[in-house]
Amino acid sequence: MTTARTTERTTPRGRLYGIGVGPGDPELLTLKALRLLKAAPVVAYFVAKGKKGNAFSIVEAHLAGEQIQLPLVYPVTTEALAPPLSYEAIIADFYDTAAAVVSAHLEAGRDVAVICEGDPFFYGSYMYLHDRLAPHFDVDVVPGVCSMLGGAAVLGAPLVYRNQSLSVLSGVLPEDELRRRLMDADAAVVMKLGRNFEKVRRVLDELGLASRALYVERATMANQRIVPLAEVDPMASPYFSLLVVPGERWQG
Amino acid sequence: MTTARTTERTTPRGRLYGIGVGPGDPELLTLKALRLLKAAPVVAYFVAKGKKGNAFSIVEAHLAGEQIQLPLVYPVTTEALAPPLSYEAIIADFYDTAAAVVSAHLEAGRDVAVICEGDPFFYGSYMYLHDRLAPHFDVDVVPGVCSMLGGAAVLGAPLVYRNQSLSVLSGVLPEDELRRRLMDADAAVVMKLGRNFEKVRRVLDELGLASRALYVERATMANQRIVPLAEVDPMASPYFSLLVVPGERWQG
Repeated sequence: MTTARTTERTTPRGRLYGIGVGPGDPELLTLKALRLLKAAPVVAYFVAKGKKGNAFSIVEAHLAGEQIQLPLVYPVTTEALAPPLSYEAIIADFYDTAAAVVSAHLEAGRDVAVICEGDPFFYGSYMYLHDRLAPHFDVDVVPGVCSMLGGAAVLGAPLVYRNQSLSVLSGVLPEDELRRRLMDADAAVVMKLGRNFEKVRRVLDELGLASRALYVERATMANQRIVPLAEVDPMASPYFSLLVVPGERWQG
Repeated sequence: MTTARTTERTTPRGRLYGIGVGPGDPELLTLKALRLLKAAPVVAYFVAKGKKGNAFSIVEAHLAGEQIQLPLVYPVTTEALAPPLSYEAIIADFYDTAAAVVSAHLEAGRDVAVICEGDPFFYGSYMYLHDRLAPHFDVDVVPGVCSMLGGAAVLGAPLVYRNQSLSVLSGVLPEDELRRRLMDADAAVVMKLGRNFEKVRRVLDELGLASRALYVERATMANQRIVPLAEVDPMASPYFSLLVVPGERWQG
């Protein structure tokens, strides 16, 4: 004897795809990302208010008119908010809402491709949707070329030789922690520079690493800029810039 | 008045491409890698004696009969050699020879695509050719999805949240250094496990990280295996396996 099921599904649920679209050059999209992206009835992406967004710009040429485009627009553009506003609380609410919006499409049987600049699991906003939705839906994550690898490639800078350790750091870290971690690194990449640039350059100078460090803005994008470290204007360094301190060359 | 040039070139030199072909799934090739690969008159790749090689297997279906295939076959399969043999000396000679072979094609005006599993600058053998040839030839490096990102994707494991630091470590490191670096890491990836697996698992156990760690063999390849850490047979862990210790989830 079986219990009557009053909520039997008529439509199978949609599948969630977290798709890395690479660091900026539209040709750095993978074949898999392209195939899934073209097949998805809904294409979602995080974006700042009033912007088109990097992820969307990368894939735009491949989208067809009948696909539903679902921008998930950040409610705030800075983490520095005057009390009683709390960035953490606002952003958690926002991700909850974004997850509910995506969830509604999945429940209705539509696959949703969430496109992410770089790689979905490497500092990507997709992670916050994944954590909320992966327990409830079928999910596939398609890795992408992350900005760190795009940066090293355009800088012509081999990152790590043989058994060297690589430290990937955020420029937002406090100066002491940056110093400690950079001092201990065989090779390092510092992301999220922007307003943190001056602090990071000071630490590199102190540690004698400045001569080894390489700097690039918007690696692989059409407006990419490679600038010698000493010539970077700290007031003009964009968020999408990064520093690479390559490992000491192993002769091999 | 100009000096007579006795060595005027008749053919322009070829261009060197270091091309990342991704972690194993042939669909994780980028559009750019595919385009350059198909156009290259010479396709070179490092490979162990008697093997086809992962990089070659990934791209094989895209190659045409008229392209020159140039396997660069390692003279040794282990770093542990009995004196007076020295791995460092043998491998340096080998890379010198490989660079000379590639160089001859470039001098003859043929572009050479050196294909690399994962990303060319992320522990790739291509780096040793790059260091030797980039000072003398025009070079482009095409980044690829590295094994670490492929591993995180198939494990469904977001790697690093927000301002967390990521430590990428080699399993070959001495136990003390592994312990120190893992203790200090917000999130970590340990590559090159193979015979080092037992040592790495012991350190993770000591540090209370074993419950957070995830293990995968040959991520994204056809013979991929995801195994709970406690069930891994340390004698059977392949070189192409990795451990991910994801960063603590940030609620966001």
